[in-house]
Order: sequence, then C-alpha cells, then structure tokens
Amino acid sequence: MAPSPAPGTIARFVSQDRLAQRLADMATIGATEKGGVNRPALSVQDGKARALLTEWALARGFAVATDGIGNLYVRRAGSDPDAAPVMTGSHLDSQPTGGRYDGVYGVLAGFEVLEALEDAGIPTRHPVELVAWTNEEGSRFQPYCMGSALFAGKMDLGMVLACTDPKGISVKDALAETLSLAPPMPVRPFGGAAAAYVEAHIEQGPRLEAEGKTIGVVQGIQGSRWFQVEVTGQEAHAGTTPHGARKDAFQAALRMVTALNELMHDPDDIIRCTFGRFEVLPGSPNTVPGKVIFTIDFRHPDAAVVNEKGDAITPLLQSLAAPCTVTVRETSTTAPVDFAPAVVDAVRDAAALLGYPHRDMPSGANHDAKFMAPRCPTGMIFIPCKDGISHNEVEYASPEHCHAGAAVLAETLVQLAEA
Amino acid sequence: MAPSPAPGTIARFVSQDRLAQRLADMATIGATEKGGVNRPALSVQDGKARALLTEWALARGFAVATDGIGNLYVRRAGSDPDAAPVMTGSHLDSQPTGGRYDGVYGVLAGFEVLEALEDAGIPTRHPVELVAWTNEEGSRFQPYCMGSALFAGKMDLGMVLACTDPKGISVKDALAETLSLAPPMPVRPFGGAAAAYVEAHIEQGPRLEAEGKTIGVVQGIQGSRWFQVEVTGQEAHAGTTPHGARKDAFQAALRMVTALNELMHDPDDIIRCTFGRFEVLPGSPNTVPGKVIFTIDFRHPDAAVVNEKGDAITPLLQSLAAPCTVTVRETSTTAPVDFAPAVVDAVRDAAALLGYPHRDMPSGANHDAKFMAPRCPTGMIFIPCKDGISHNEVEYASPEHCHAGAAVLAETLVQLAEA
Repeated sequence: MAPSPAPGTIARFVSQDRLAQRLADMATIGATEKGGVNRPALSVQDGKARALLTEWALARGFAVATDGIGNLYVRRAGSDPDAAPVMTGSHLDSQPTGGRYDGVYGVLAGFEVLEALEDAGIPTRHPVELVAWTNEEGSRFQPYCMGSALFAGKMDLGMVLACTDPKGISVKDALAETLSLAPPMPVRPFGGAAAAYVEAHIEQGPRLEAEGKTIGVVQGIQGSRWFQVEVTGQEAHAGTTPHGARKDAFQAALRMVTALNELMHDPDDIIRCTFGRFEVLPGSPNTVPGKVIFTIDFRHPDAAVVNEKGDAITPLLQSLAAPCTVTVRETSTTAPVDFAPAVVDAVRDAAALLGYPHRDMPSGANHDAKFMAPRCPTGMIFIPCKDGISHNEVEYASPEHCHAGAAVLAETLVQLAEA
Repeated sequence: MAPSPAPGTIARFVSQDRLAQRLADMATIGATEKGGVNRPALSVQDGKARALLTEWALARGFAVATDGIGNLYVRRAGSDPDAAPVMTGSHLDSQPTGGRYDGVYGVLAGFEVLEALEDAGIPTRHPVELVAWTNEEGSRFQPYCMGSALFAGKMDLGMVLACTDPKGISVKDALAETLSLAPPMPVRPFGGAAAAYVEAHIEQGPRLEAEGKTIGVVQGIQGSRWFQVEVTGQEAHAGTTPHGARKDAFQAALRMVTALNELMHDPDDIIRCTFGRFEVLPGSPNTVPGKVIFTIDFRHPDAAVVNEKGDAITPLLQSLAAPCTVTVRETSTTAPVDFAPAVVDAVRDAAALLGYPHRDMPSGANHDAKFMAPRCPTGMIFIPCKDGISHNEVEYASPEHCHAGAAVLAETLVQLAEA
C-alpha cells in the first residue's frame, strides 16, 4: 500500500477549468433562455445528464452501476477489498426554473475529485464512490429525496414507483425511459455499507457571501416545525362597528405574529421563523375580517430549541386569541440532523489546510445528506452563491468558489478514504 | 290654520302594529329562505315594492310622483301653498343577501308618519313628503345613492342611465321595466326646494344595543379615506435566509399596521381603522414573502381628524418600509358631513319628549342623507339592530324599536313642518 499523500497534495490536482467546463457542459442539458436549467427528475433531460456523466466515467475507467430507482454510482476502486466506500454526491435533477449549480455542483465536484485522484495516481484504502441521487427536488414527483431515502431504507420502492407526476406519468414508467438513455450497467441493491458520505452544495443562502467566507463547514441540517393557524372572528361593517365591539381576526392574527416574532427573536440570527402564507377573509376593504389563515415555518439546528420554542407556539397563540378563537395544527415536524464530528472536523481541517476562509454553519435546506446521516458518518461542504439566490435561473457560484469546494471535498475524501 | 298639536300628540297616532305589518308585507317581496330579502335596485322585486307602496299611498289619498331615475315621491299636502316640503325617506332596494330593515324601514317609518298625520287630522304648514330613493345600495349598479345624488344635482343622468349591471343590463332598460310595474304617475324634475330632510334607519352597528339606547341622534356622517398599500420586498428561502438578510414584505407590512394601530388608537373608540384586505405573495409557507398588498379604511366624523391622521399615513408607512419599498395610493376620499343643528336638536328633543333613551352619534355608513345634507337642513334617526348585524339576512330590529323611531320621526317632522 502506498504511503498517504502529504496534506494538500490532492487539492493541487483539482482543476478549476475542468470543473467549470463540466458544469457548463451539463448546463446545456435542459438549458433555459434565461441561463438556468429545467431538468425535471426522470425526464429526457435527466436521462441525458446521466448518460453524459456515465460517458465521462467510463472514459476515465471508473465502474458505473445503478439501482432500482436509478441512482447512478461511479466508483474508483480502493486498495482494501473489504473496505466500504467513502461516498460523495448530490443530484442532477433541477427545479422547473432552476439554476446551474443546485445539486449538479455536488455531483461534478465529486467527479472532479475522482479525476484528480486518477491524475495524481493516489491510491486510497477505501473505494471512493460518487452517487447522483434520483429526484432530490421533488418538484415533479413527490416525495423528494427518493434516491437517498430508498438507499437508506426510509421509503418503500413499490410506493415510490407508483407515484405519478401532474400528467399522470408514473415514476416506474419515467424511470424506464430515463434509464434507456444511458448504456446498460449493473443494477445493485439499495443500501450496502458506506464508510462516510460527504456532499458539496451551494449554500442557497446569503451568509457565506455576506461574511466573505469561501467554505461553509456544515454541522447538520436544522430541524423544522410547520404550523397552520386558523383565527376565527366575526365579519362586521368597517364604518359602523366600534373597535371595542369587533372580533377582528386580522387584529388577533397581528397580535399573534407580533408575539411569535418576540418568542423567536434571536440576536444570533440562527432561528428561522417565516410567515409565508397569510390569508385574510373575506378580503373586502370595508369589512372587518372574520377569518385569517396563516402558516409558521420555524427552524433551528438544535433539537432542544426546536422542541422548546415549537411547543410554546400553540399556548401562546391561544392566550392571544380573545375575542376571536384559534386552532393550531402542526403540519410537519422534522428533527434536526447532526453531522458526524469526524466528518465535520475533516471538512474544517481541509478548509484550514487550504487557507480558505470558512465558518461552521447549519444547513437551512434539506439535502440527500439528511437521509445518509443515520447510515454513516456524514457531512456537507457549502460554497457561496451570489446574493443567496437559488431555485432560480440566475443562481450563480463563481468558478473560484466551485474549485475551492471541490478542493476541500478532495482533501476530506482522501483523509476519510485513507482512514 | 289649525293650532299646532301639543308635543307628543302625533306620536300617539303612530301604530306599532301597522308599521310591523307593513314591514312584514314588504319583506315578502324578494324574500329569501333564510328570512332576509334580495331586492336589487331596479329589479322586478324593486318594481313590486314600489307598486305596493304606491297602492298604499293612493289608498290614503296621497299624491305620488316619480322622476327621471324612478325616485318615488308620496306627498301629504301642507296648508301653505308656498312652503317647500319637509322630506323623509330612505330606499327599498337591498343587498343581494340583505335584511328586512336596511332602507325599507326608513321608507315605511316615513309612510307611517303620513298615515298617523291623516289619522290624527293634523294639518302641517309644509307638505310632508316621503321619498323612496332609487339604488342606494349600489350592489347591482354603481355608483350607489343614484337617486339622492341625482336629486341633489351631484350626478349626470345620462351617465347614470348608461351604467350596466354585471349582466350588461343598463340602468335605462332596468328602470323602464321597473316603472312599468307601478301605475302611471306624474314625472317631476330633479331637485326643487326642500325645507328639511330626515331619514330613519337602523344603526347597522352595535352601539345603541350595547348601551341600551333606543334612539341614535345622528350628528352627521363620518368622513373616510381609503388607501391601498403595496409593500415590495424580495422572495427568499425560508430555511436558508437569515432574518438579517431578508427583505420580508410581510414583516414590513406588520410594522406598518402596528404603527397605524398606534396612530389610530382612540380611547373614545370613535376612529375606525380597518385592514380588510391583506394579501401576502407568493403565499408559499416556506418562501419569505416578496409582496404584500393591503387596504386601509379610515373614518372619523371630524374633518380635522380625517385630514390630520389621514395625511400622516403615507409618510409613516414610508418611514417603516426599509429594507423593503412601499407605494401608498389613496383610492377614495369622502369629507365628513355635519347635519343641521336645527334638525339634530329636533330629533334629540323628540326622543327626550317621548322618554326614549338616546345618544348623539355619527353615522358610520353612508346614506342618502349624505347627498341631501348640502341641499337642506338634514338629519337622521337611528334605531338599534340586533348584534349590530346588517347587510345580512339575519338583520333584525324589534317592533318596539321600529315604533320608537317612527314616533321620533313623526314628532320631528311635525315640528319642522309647522315651523
């Protein structure tokens, strides 16, 4: 077995230009007029993207495989035949008016690492395996993260294959068409041992850019609790009804969101609390509103905060409802995911080694890494995206930042694959 | 000329039962299943109501007339051929799901006064003239208060006749059909001298009932200023975007309505400030809102308050918009109307004479009296309605309250018609 390469060795083989070119080539598949990408999961565009990646993989001599949901695996062999693979990856599917980086960056950064390892001639004890997960976005087929969830044993394949898109096309049929666009390859079962999983991704938020950081060392994925609140008052004439005689659902809801803002106030700006839907009925300018329906999207990386603040919501709203009434329904609950300290430390060490400004941070959005975290030591690497904009055709990450993320990923994977 | 009757004489001739029966008879025209009335302006139902009133008037020997918009005049002659009529009235049209009292009560209370005068054999110097104004509600044809506004010279007849309902039927065509349902009668020009105008109406608010008052001595109609506010921020991911980096249009609008609540706070509960429409876009639970459109309906009886507080709105909202932007558009402005002290005093004196608990109050809603006020000394009499509910099929005023209002109207009209 060859000696471990000196730290920083593999990073020198990570090519900014090659990665930028691969990103540009992939962005031609499903390209939109405004410079974005429309590459729905299991579409022809998705199939073409998989075919292109397969072509690149085979050209470099890597082994490819798929599974029952079309996850695409690209493996560079390790020196120890008994060692489980160190995995990396993300997804090739996009939002309908998506960008050129969300998901595909993580796939191509992983592929760049495989190529850099080849170019450097660096052997690893563990295999290093890239995976392009099927249908992360969930914008065509729900549920989202089908590929990683099935890999992790968190969904039932039969149920998933029966899901249909808005046109009535099933996952099963769409998958068959998508797979037909790439060369035949071995089909492996879901799961299997994994030594670690590291996913690179654009931040999809403004924090790194605002603070001038190049690398986000992702500590986990924040938990979330969603609520739907319905406030019922009584419609009344806006001209004749004194305020003291009103049951104004809008004013009651106003008290509630004001109190929720106080409850969720966080000087460190870690808590996320968003009122995205807020419907006032009947919506006539000269009628006192009789009903308000609003949503609360509350997120935090710390399970204790998610539990404590989340549990405080319903009693708080009930205390503020009079003279109206309120019903509060929790519509979704997701516990925070903590990434493995060994992987988080490896990412941080790699960023420090390479001299990139970096910061620890949670992930605000969900990713395939959420499903991998319970299965193996998992982590993520964030790079900045312009103005924090994502799920948008103007989504942008600079070639320098893409390169930095891939270099950190390379150092991290080499460290984990040697271990 | 006969001597004036002693105060309180005419009130004894006002019949609670007859008025209740007339209200019940009129409520059969356009009756709804839920006990309300659907009698759109210039509909067949409206025509039938006018025909019934005409029949009652002719049976009592009163003169009837109409005009170019179908206002229906019922006159009891006075002893002085040169004296202008003292007028009373309201409207027979209703909201689509309206009640049995809004408008029609004022018409039938006025008719009850004419009958009581006949029954008592009391002559008046001025004629007493009842008018049923055309299309007060404005729910089928806009603008509202067509009849009184045309009488007062505030609208152009050609423009009004050309207005169409949602089915494309013009006022002109609907009017012809409506008039055809009543016997032919003289057509008089708009306007003409009026010595006074007194309108009885249900309060359409909860104040009299809550305070145990039988009569509202209406001092005027409050002024109103309507605004439409558009707050523009930027959509962002609810999970990834720190609050410090958001341009959350909902939070900006929340600051605005909170500040407006403070600006409009009134310990005396005279100011009305209603946020009836409040739209949050795009309305997705996990997207930070990029836009909010809301309305402000602000009313007060005092012109100085209407001007001062109203003028403060736009600069206040602009000061609170950052990091969002705001545009404020004033969509409607109506100056307060002050009723004539002589009429207001006459109403108050009559209520006191008859021993009814009463209070001075402004009208929160608009009425035909608004258009009469600039033409002649004008006033209104309110009676309680159950739970303050109006524009609703459950609208209700007790026979006792209906009788009390008619009795006060009778004393007031006699005083004004003798003067």
